[in-house]
Amino acid sequence: MPAQPDLPLAAPELLDSMLTRKFGPEVQNYFSGSPLNRLSFLRTDHAFLAAALTHHSTAFVAVDDLAPAARDAANLAYVSHADLSAVIGENPFAKTEAEMIEAYNSKVASPLILFLGINDKRHEGFEYKAYKGVPYFAVDITPKGSHEEAAKGVIETLKAKNLIFLQGRSAMTLNASDAAIFAQARALLDWNARNPFCSGCGQPTLSVHAGTKRVCPTADLAPGASARGPCATRGVVSNLSFPRTDPTVIMAVISHDGTKVLLGRQKRWPTDWYSTLAGFCEPAESVEEAVRREVWEESGVRVGRVVVHSSQPWPYPANLMIGAIGQAVKGGEEINLEHDPELEQAKWFDFETVRVALKTGTSGLDEAPGEGRKEGDLRLPGHTAIANQLLQAVVLGGFLGGETKI
Amino acid sequence: MPAQPDLPLAAPELLDSMLTRKFGPEVQNYFSGSPLNRLSFLRTDHAFLAAALTHHSTAFVAVDDLAPAARDAANLAYVSHADLSAVIGENPFAKTEAEMIEAYNSKVASPLILFLGINDKRHEGFEYKAYKGVPYFAVDITPKGSHEEAAKGVIETLKAKNLIFLQGRSAMTLNASDAAIFAQARALLDWNARNPFCSGCGQPTLSVHAGTKRVCPTADLAPGASARGPCATRGVVSNLSFPRTDPTVIMAVISHDGTKVLLGRQKRWPTDWYSTLAGFCEPAESVEEAVRREVWEESGVRVGRVVVHSSQPWPYPANLMIGAIGQAVKGGEEINLEHDPELEQAKWFDFETVRVALKTGTSGLDEAPGEGRKEGDLRLPGHTAIANQLLQAVVLGGFLGGETKI
Repeated sequence: MPAQPDLPLAAPELLDSMLTRKFGPEVQNYFSGSPLNRLSFLRTDHAFLAAALTHHSTAFVAVDDLAPAARDAANLAYVSHADLSAVIGENPFAKTEAEMIEAYNSKVASPLILFLGINDKRHEGFEYKAYKGVPYFAVDITPKGSHEEAAKGVIETLKAKNLIFLQGRSAMTLNASDAAIFAQARALLDWNARNPFCSGCGQPTLSVHAGTKRVCPTADLAPGASARGPCATRGVVSNLSFPRTDPTVIMAVISHDGTKVLLGRQKRWPTDWYSTLAGFCEPAESVEEAVRREVWEESGVRVGRVVVHSSQPWPYPANLMIGAIGQAVKGGEEINLEHDPELEQAKWFDFETVRVALKTGTSGLDEAPGEGRKEGDLRLPGHTAIANQLLQAVVLGGFLGGETKI
Repeated sequence: MPAQPDLPLAAPELLDSMLTRKFGPEVQNYFSGSPLNRLSFLRTDHAFLAAALTHHSTAFVAVDDLAPAARDAANLAYVSHADLSAVIGENPFAKTEAEMIEAYNSKVASPLILFLGINDKRHEGFEYKAYKGVPYFAVDITPKGSHEEAAKGVIETLKAKNLIFLQGRSAMTLNASDAAIFAQARALLDWNARNPFCSGCGQPTLSVHAGTKRVCPTADLAPGASARGPCATRGVVSNLSFPRTDPTVIMAVISHDGTKVLLGRQKRWPTDWYSTLAGFCEPAESVEEAVRREVWEESGVRVGRVVVHSSQPWPYPANLMIGAIGQAVKGGEEINLEHDPELEQAKWFDFETVRVALKTGTSGLDEAPGEGRKEGDLRLPGHTAIANQLLQAVVLGGFLGGETKI
């Protein structure tokens, strides 16, 4: 389990609780465990946002094309308003949302400024109503549109200060707390970038709620903009206006007698590398049903009881991984890869083999396996993957023993 | 718990399993428990779809503006291809997907025909490769576009056969099996209807994968259609192309000492009517974190350990309700409605009050409460709501007693 340096709840309280005694301490998977209080209800309060954006203590995550500025592989760089002022420009929260919508011009591309929350364990002078703490924002400094040159300048200045930009999955070396903050920034910046148009009417949309909602304005002041027709997203609460998160199931399936666990591999993975099965939840399917369907489609194995173990946000781009443990029904363990041929192989592994692999064979897909691994032994995902946590829960005792560990 | 007449897994198998002994039998909430095998991997196989659509045994759910045709309040009407042929027209699956995309014309509005799955417990002659069973489709017979008149005719014919159309939430009187089939149809028909345009580039899109995917074609044969630019959803797997399901948390929160449960009410609800708190998961948030954030924002209560109990698909329009039980941290029970003023009231109720309400005070929001309820007693949602199941798990023993019931 990844280090969780800054948990929102103190461990002694957790250990004191009734549910903890029964279910064991919570597994907080990588990308969860953010130290920030999102204060989601203040995202429409422009006075709050305007004050938070310009406070001297405020911390900014600068993101270029989804790569965050960092001090090193393990730590984000929290930069200041002054570092980014060339991109931020005038305080975008000086206006109310109603004013922003009325002034909408689809040809004016403002940089996306995302309010992440406040760290209420740190007090450096920022206060608003009942809330105190250090405000956090993310700013999209991708060079484009009218702020292209300003953004390039900001990026050069940050690089001159020896900051680096963590590209792609290299952000997964961040410490747990920074990883959770980055996950929030990445998911929302990416959602805004992927959805510049309204899927209800096809017209361009405007980012509001400090980066967490997009609205379809009734009019567009851009010269030559076509008249906008009616749109179903206006006037009613529409899920199309809000960020999309795709629920996904990932499951350690045990044999009916509880001695083996089902793993699968894709063709492009390194030799001997396996993981738990996974797939997207479909509309009108419970988590438990999605687990049973995906396991059967990919491996032919029929699963009975399913229990949720823990969950993990996965910001590539917007998944919520729901980690479960399932058990094959009696006689349902035969493997058949012919239904949905997604996997190159699916196999039952005895617990001891998985235990050995958890000790010596874990790594990222593109990394070398752990030390002490014997050639030909099973390889598994590392501790930042929920698959690893699910397998620990199954084979390291507790979950299947006398004491329930989830 | 709603009757589950046609579960995909036999109860004796479930009861035999290790996980069941430990966690108790699974709660299958209303709208889950579909008897259909979705065979999701055959949605691109036009030969399969074309044969299934026209087989004599195939069952059709006819849906007018999201209201399904029904025999009565408890039973869907499964009609035949002949009943709907005026709307279906020529077999839309005669062409491959590649051919459909190449022939794309945004001015031709074909009725949406959705493959739901096969009931593999019934054999009436349909077979394809290794799969046998009765195929199920849903057809959108909403009168519109070029098939408006045909659809009106079909609707009149069905009504003349004494079928009714279940509007809005009145579909929640359906038996559990039909409710699950309807939920799948409603979620997908609604998703297609809400998303006629590509949110990546603003152009109209085409339904493929038998109603479970929308693609953004490179060209549009409609006269006068503008040239289509590049689109990020082409060429890569994009979540924008697939149905959206919004993960939602709903939670029974118990006091730290395990004697009371936290309920809230909205202003528009009937007097004395309360339910468990609920809210949407945000990007980059685990289920457990979403529970703690929502409870604190809406009620001020601070929650420690969170355990997932069960889940429920909710097709109004596309939620996945993840039902959890959480426990307040020591000293975290004070109620504060000032953060996010969504609730009119939030209160702690002792278990006995909730037990009485579960016996005599449950109903839908617009129904009369159960018999035997005393004036002024607590009212709660009925058994089709996951809130009801969560409260049962908490106050009817098992979950907090010696035996783990989830």
